[in-house]
Amino acid sequence: MGSHDEPVKTTAGNSRVTAETLAEKQHEISVTEFFEKNKQVLGFDSRAKSLLMGVKEAVDNSLDACEEGEFLPDIIVKIEKLAKEEYRVSIEDNGPGIVHRAMPNVFGRLLYGSRFHAMRQSRGQQGIGISATVMFANISTGRPAHIASRIEGKDEVAWEMDIAVDTKTNRPLVTNDRAFSWPGKEHGTRIEYTTKGVYNTGRQSIFEYLKETAIVNPHARIEFHDPEGTKYVFERATETMPPKAKEIKPHPQGMEIGDMMTYSSLSEQKTVKDFLKNDFCRMTARLADEICKNGGVNPSMSPRDLGREGSMALIKGISEVKLMAPPADCLSPIGDVLIKKGLMHTLEGMRPEYYATPVSRPPKAVNGNPFTIEVGIVYGGDIPSDGQVTIMRFANRVPLLYQQGADVITKAIGEVDWRRYGLEQRGGKGIPFGPAIILVHMASTKVPFTSEGKEAIAYFPEIEEEMIAALKLCARNLKSHLNKMEKKNKTHEKFDIVQGILPDLANKISEQLGKPVPDLSRTISKIMNVVWIEPSVEKSKESRKITYTIYNYTVRPHSFMIHLQIPAECMNDTITGGPMFDSANEEGKSQWLVKDLEASSSVQISFELKGDMADTFDADDVYISGINPVMVMGAESLPGDWGIKGMKITEENDYVPDDTDDEEEEEALEDEEAEFEKEADE
Amino acid sequence: MGSHDEPVKTTAGNSRVTAETLAEKQHEISVTEFFEKNKQVLGFDSRAKSLLMGVKEAVDNSLDACEEGEFLPDIIVKIEKLAKEEYRVSIEDNGPGIVHRAMPNVFGRLLYGSRFHAMRQSRGQQGIGISATVMFANISTGRPAHIASRIEGKDEVAWEMDIAVDTKTNRPLVTNDRAFSWPGKEHGTRIEYTTKGVYNTGRQSIFEYLKETAIVNPHARIEFHDPEGTKYVFERATETMPPKAKEIKPHPQGMEIGDMMTYSSLSEQKTVKDFLKNDFCRMTARLADEICKNGGVNPSMSPRDLGREGSMALIKGISEVKLMAPPADCLSPIGDVLIKKGLMHTLEGMRPEYYATPVSRPPKAVNGNPFTIEVGIVYGGDIPSDGQVTIMRFANRVPLLYQQGADVITKAIGEVDWRRYGLEQRGGKGIPFGPAIILVHMASTKVPFTSEGKEAIAYFPEIEEEMIAALKLCARNLKSHLNKMEKKNKTHEKFDIVQGILPDLANKISEQLGKPVPDLSRTISKIMNVVWIEPSVEKSKESRKITYTIYNYTVRPHSFMIHLQIPAECMNDTITGGPMFDSANEEGKSQWLVKDLEASSSVQISFELKGDMADTFDADDVYISGINPVMVMGAESLPGDWGIKGMKITEENDYVPDDTDDEEEEEALEDEEAEFEKEADE
Repeated sequence: MGSHDEPVKTTAGNSRVTAETLAEKQHEISVTEFFEKNKQVLGFDSRAKSLLMGVKEAVDNSLDACEEGEFLPDIIVKIEKLAKEEYRVSIEDNGPGIVHRAMPNVFGRLLYGSRFHAMRQSRGQQGIGISATVMFANISTGRPAHIASRIEGKDEVAWEMDIAVDTKTNRPLVTNDRAFSWPGKEHGTRIEYTTKGVYNTGRQSIFEYLKETAIVNPHARIEFHDPEGTKYVFERATETMPPKAKEIKPHPQGMEIGDMMTYSSLSEQKTVKDFLKNDFCRMTARLADEICKNGGVNPSMSPRDLGREGSMALIKGISEVKLMAPPADCLSPIGDVLIKKGLMHTLEGMRPEYYATPVSRPPKAVNGNPFTIEVGIVYGGDIPSDGQVTIMRFANRVPLLYQQGADVITKAIGEVDWRRYGLEQRGGKGIPFGPAIILVHMASTKVPFTSEGKEAIAYFPEIEEEMIAALKLCARNLKSHLNKMEKKNKTHEKFDIVQGILPDLANKISEQLGKPVPDLSRTISKIMNVVWIEPSVEKSKESRKITYTIYNYTVRPHSFMIHLQIPAECMNDTITGGPMFDSANEEGKSQWLVKDLEASSSVQISFELKGDMADTFDADDVYISGINPVMVMGAESLPGDWGIKGMKITEENDYVPDDTDDEEEEEALEDEEAEFEKEADE
Repeated sequence: MGSHDEPVKTTAGNSRVTAETLAEKQHEISVTEFFEKNKQVLGFDSRAKSLLMGVKEAVDNSLDACEEGEFLPDIIVKIEKLAKEEYRVSIEDNGPGIVHRAMPNVFGRLLYGSRFHAMRQSRGQQGIGISATVMFANISTGRPAHIASRIEGKDEVAWEMDIAVDTKTNRPLVTNDRAFSWPGKEHGTRIEYTTKGVYNTGRQSIFEYLKETAIVNPHARIEFHDPEGTKYVFERATETMPPKAKEIKPHPQGMEIGDMMTYSSLSEQKTVKDFLKNDFCRMTARLADEICKNGGVNPSMSPRDLGREGSMALIKGISEVKLMAPPADCLSPIGDVLIKKGLMHTLEGMRPEYYATPVSRPPKAVNGNPFTIEVGIVYGGDIPSDGQVTIMRFANRVPLLYQQGADVITKAIGEVDWRRYGLEQRGGKGIPFGPAIILVHMASTKVPFTSEGKEAIAYFPEIEEEMIAALKLCARNLKSHLNKMEKKNKTHEKFDIVQGILPDLANKISEQLGKPVPDLSRTISKIMNVVWIEPSVEKSKESRKITYTIYNYTVRPHSFMIHLQIPAECMNDTITGGPMFDSANEEGKSQWLVKDLEASSSVQISFELKGDMADTFDADDVYISGINPVMVMGAESLPGDWGIKGMKITEENDYVPDDTDDEEEEEALEDEEAEFEKEADE
């Protein structure tokens, strides 16, 4: 041994002194020291992850700030390599800026922020992330962060300063504080810091984080300069800001006695009735009276006199009334259209076969915090089929790249029996296998993360339940697509056989007999007995040309209606002016009337879609009415939830009871066969 | 809508005011408020988990206190049901007690403790757990916790008081503080609190937590009274305290520049040389000089004058010298014998077929914190074979029941290709399937948990690497056992065939010919050509009777040595006084000399084992020397790492080159067959 390491004096055998010794050792731990020693709970464990975490915290803050200021986010991320494992990172936004006096605390003090007590969906909440970034960068290189910010207004100057965190006291250390002119910058903030780090590519990289951020924030433009100097731009996919999430008051349901005691003791209201009515959401004077009556509490007493017994009585009273669920406008979900669009935008290279219609669930609440779950599934194409499905996790529009195993999302996916929805899964449990990507987004006023690093959503039964419900709904879409495809493939096979073998047979026999080849189209129609609707899509840079060919492979003429959901933004003359077009409503639900389509003939519907939303049109989603859906290939019966009545099925235009129809058809078929045999015999 | 929820005033379109508005909203968040709103990071999310977490924090503290005071832990856990989802919980220990003035802060203040800065293995470190328990119990029921403690000493009285946490200020609120007499209690602490909770049974229950705690703390006695009033006792399995973990100074390797700046600015040493020599571990005057020289730092300057540049120079200097790894005596691993014993103790009901010899790895360091990994594997018997293997996770002798998916242990297990070691695993990745239990223990001066709730170990490449190495080593034991079993089974089959068919054939032919049945034992021996060692174990309450039967199924006599590892504590007269016993060393490595065992004959070694450690003797672990191991069934060649030289293989006593041997044997066999045929012919 190179040296003798003197162990700290122990007090073996003298326990009274140990109790004293212990007491002397006990002291307060500053929250900064605590996080410094436990950097992994903040996500700053490995060099690679630290580099990502810093970018993530800064970009999350920038997006929040832009949305609060109602500016379409314009974010520039730059990473420069300075030395081995040492980088300079800068993130600039066009948010409302930060006033001069607030800058030190925002960046130089942990547990300091504006959103902690707000019940409203936002990315940052704890007032930890960005100051932790500043702290760990400083610990790793000894250098402070450099912050610049300008708030809007002609007379405002920009301010810049160097900020570090004093880990002993959790207070900002500011140097070089000065005003400066920032040419061309009307408002916004830039943070620049030097940190030890490792720059990675791949699934858990800064590039992937920014890409996934773009998927769920289609209103943001993100520019990224990587350490090689390559510039990537994720362009805005929409100019519309997401609806602003409103701040709400706490919802009284599921409140703990301790919370009630705190709220009541701090209330500024004069009476318990006013306290209930004004300090909570979903409350009325009538409900407040009822709660007081149920709990046996005097509604005119001061809320500050409630104490433990009174608070308990109020909680009992609340449990006996029926309250509305918390309002949904404190949330800002992505929405099914934008999820699909975001996925298509990003996954184009994999040419997936199918995008299941994303599912957005109505809000529920956990611990008084409203939340909503959104799910999307992408299937097939070049998505690798030999491994587990890819899971894309999001919380309040922030991609979660680490700690997949700890996330309730992973658990919920594992609880669904995916074998029922067409994916492979051992024992009906765990992450399924197959060529699919599953996206899950949780939006909430308070996402319960497993740690301050906000890498995974903690397990709550209420959340898991909602996720499972959303996953199953979305999986049902996938399953119906897979069924459709299987059916289509089988009918295709049948077609190939009938259209291949029958004419061959006829040719051969006719040749041997020296007779002319008979026309088989009626025969083939009789055997097939379907109306076939086949879509084709021609993509170009500006537009998509959609064509449906409708074949009548039956022995009778048919009339029916074809229904398509055109994105409302894409309605145009090529649709409304086209042949057979019937009508469309303002949501883009459109219909075409196919009138008297003769046996063994075909007809075409064709139009062009342009613009942002053209992508989201799914050519395979075809609905029909006015015809027995059993005899149609490539379309489903018009569903009730379209809120539109399709054509009625009547004897005149198509549908007659099965038995008579069958008999008729069979007779006709027999006739025809007899005719064919007779011809062949001669 | 029942009421109009007034949204908080927004400042749309006026961003200058928003920057101001934001600044006004910003304020400090107290650490208690933070944890109150993020109870899931402390593990207090669901009612069921909260109840378990409280018990866990209290028992962890009690075990730490007992070990610090060097008392064999005696812990009593009681849970009483008071109302629906409401319980009274009490945990009492025989630790050194807590001095009166320290009680309020220990139980009523978060981030307050004695072990935060100590580099030594302990269960609690953060000074959060027990005060969080008091806080959440108080929030859920409005009641303070009741604490009683007595420190050792004739003249000391016991003290009791009610304690709650003021969540606004993070300070204890004390009421009913008084001295009392605690009859029969010499020293120790009891905490009693009322909390909302749900009492569960099963895999994530208080009972399971205490059971697993008993596995890895065989020196503790734990008494548990469940809400039904049933009393369970986990008795001490050993009277020996684990070696006391020593406190060490920080190890300079891998230190961040920020850490170095802090250490040097706070050092009480006069010179940089003394600072290096005295404030770190594994340092000498010579090394300190070398570091200063390498970094170009004046060794006589004050460490407080180092600053950023000087600290950076020191770190550079440190990186250029070779330092010893941190000392291991700051750790207290369980040890392979006690792991096996603990597992056997607890899993007896499942009658596992095999306990792989547990693996304890030598210590490594991550971020300057020494750690060591221990792994045990149990296989077969009644362990369910149709699902994933069971994973038992431990950190510093504390069982981890939640967040398995987030744990580096789970990740490391998933990285091993278990198909190579006899378990089923899809694609050679992920948790394997089969009748096995895998135990992994990490002991460290600082276990990096993913969150304050200490439910899972965070991912660090260094930790994963060590775990994979330990898992593979242990899995190799499993594989060699499975191979042994397969070989044994195959030879058994061969035996059954040879011993069944040959005599049948002989009988039949002899009968038909009216001749006497020939003696086949030599023939059978020739065909088998093995020495067979077969163990049998008879268990009784007090002892285990072990018998080895050694058959010589060859055509020549053999002499050889049999080696067994007897637990040193179990050596006794039945062993040393038995037939053929040769010698044993103080570690219990024992050998028997089998001299001139005649062809087609057998002999027996038999002895009795008593006491605590009898369980840990594995009758299947038999080694031989002095005989060609290829011809022995049921034993392995004496391994080199036994540090004992076995019998030499010489031509006289057994081993002769293969070719002559083979020819001889073959000729003999042919002769014998010819003889048999001749006899049969007649």
